Amino acid sequence: MLNIRRLSLDEAKILIDGATKKSQEMNIPMCIAVTDESGNLVTFDRMDGAKITSISIAIDKAFTAAGARNGTHVYNQLCQPGQPTFGIHITNGGHFCVIGGGLPITVDGHIVGGIGVSAGTAIQDQEVAEAAVEYFMGQTGYEASA
Amino acid sequence: MLNIRRLSLDEAKILIDGATKKSQEMNIPMCIAVTDESGNLVTFDRMDGAKITSISIAIDKAFTAAGARNGTHVYNQLCQPGQPTFGIHITNGGHFCVIGGGLPITVDGHIVGGIGVSAGTAIQDQEVAEAAVEYFMGQTGYEASA
Amino acid sequence: MLNIRRLSLDEAKILIDGATKKSQEMNIPMCIAVTDESGNLVTFDRMDGAKITSISIAIDKAFTAAGARNGTHVYNQLCQPGQPTFGIHITNGGHFCVIGGGLPITVDGHIVGGIGVSAGTAIQDQEVAEAAVEYFMGQTGYEASA
Amino acid sequence: MLNIRRLSLDEAKILIDGATKKSQEMNIPMCIAVTDESGNLVTFDRMDGAKITSISIAIDKAFTAAGARNGTHVYNQLCQPGQPTFGIHITNGGHFCVIGGGLPITVDGHIVGGIGVSAGTAIQDQEVAEAAVEYFMGQTGYEASA
Repeated sequence: MLNIRRLSLDEAKILIDGATKKSQEMNIPMCIAVTDESGNLVTFDRMDGAKITSISIAIDKAFTAAGARNGTHVYNQLCQPGQPTFGIHITNGGHFCVIGGGLPITVDGHIVGGIGVSAGTAIQDQEVAEAAVEYFMGQTGYEASA
Repeated sequence: MLNIRRLSLDEAKILIDGATKKSQEMNIPMCIAVTDESGNLVTFDRMDGAKITSISIAIDKAFTAAGARNGTHVYNQLCQPGQPTFGIHITNGGHFCVIGGGLPITVDGHIVGGIGVSAGTAIQDQEVAEAAVEYFMGQTGYEASA
Repeated sequence: MLNIRRLSLDEAKILIDGATKKSQEMNIPMCIAVTDESGNLVTFDRMDGAKITSISIAIDKAFTAAGARNGTHVYNQLCQPGQPTFGIHITNGGHFCVIGGGLPITVDGHIVGGIGVSAGTAIQDQEVAEAAVEYFMGQTGYEASA
Repeated sequence: MLNIRRLSLDEAKILIDGATKKSQEMNIPMCIAVTDESGNLVTFDRMDGAKITSISIAIDKAFTAAGARNGTHVYNQLCQPGQPTFGIHITNGGHFCVIGGGLPITVDGHIVGGIGVSAGTAIQDQEVAEAAVEYFMGQTGYEASA
């Protein structure tokens, strides 16, 4: 039997809080999604005024980061034309998102979930996701590495 | 020009709080989704232990209730075989949900959003959605009719 | 942080073995799928001669049983016309299967995965799934209840 | 009347064994799928810890390799922007996979199935698929050419 660690809803909401604070500082209303380690949605917020096309992008970024165990920005480069991973952006029924702003959540060396942020540029989305992870680690006292 | 009234994120979270309280009383972890009046997701929570098949059902119930402007339980009866509305449950790309547990949120006679609850029986889901609406009205002081 | 128990691949293969033995006794080549507790596929076998339309049905049965935490035959009754859960068979992008032959795998009171069997009648599929679970419990020494 | 040669389930499992051995040597848990010559799934294993986004990618690689009768890496180059085959990666409902790691299984000059491997880099996935085919030929004594 495998023993898996998974974000609780309360912990996932800390990620939402961290992302919201950063988005407010940047004055960009964002869609923010958190999945568990298996890519299933745990919690989601669309800040007032955030783009509706970002709803599914944020959810797909969180799914991809948790499921593929990499930041979505990593695949943005790996899937460029001429690269051997070209084409990964249309797999998983179109849900594999290769735009920056999705990050896996790693605790003690285990991926326990994923966060996805969307509505700004890919760079801004990634900045918010990174701030959310930093805030999460600060609030919970968890460590990324074992 | 139309002026649309729409739930804010803070107001949508009051609906989540109301649904969560009722779910905890009933000891059934639920998936709870709130959409705006256009059927687009505003916020979502999967309580620890809630069924993963209920994620998309809760979102679809909220979408259906806001979009079709009726409780989803209403369509459960209207779409029965032999009824003229039979078949509506497979429209909208399969997102039109006819299982009880989705309710429109009505303020001053205007539909401003929808809530969808899933993980219990249809009856339990609807009970939680109704408790959430009642809690929302109590907390905000809004009135359903104009 | 939540602690989740999940079938390993070796354990999932015991379920496949149990289902295969029973299918051979019944002389019906089956498609057999095992998912983890989150509904993601762990292992799959199509016995020589099994129907190709049963590939996705077996996978969807295992997904549904694990995700909704019930045998798929339970929903077959709950979703009949006139029942409040009518319509559940078209949710989850059409992957919610309400035909008997899907069972959750429960160990110490926790759902750790799901099995789905397809190619015979719903009754035969369920019989094979039940035999697989019984074989799994016998081989591993696990108990369903805590 | 056509007479088709097709991998049996037992033969397909030899491919899984070969891929698993190589993945273990490389210390990368992989998703491994084998289809028949018609592209329909025969058997699948997700090694403990393999990425969940690789489940459907492995299946699509095996489907593509058997169906299009080429290694998926071949299409990775053929479908680059500016090439006349550009666009093939979004055909077949998104299931045509152009990432290396899918290979047709050829026996006596006939394609009898396909294997798809996913979870590492495209190069690693292809290396595992090649090792699986080599292992299969060694174990069965089959020859690729007639």
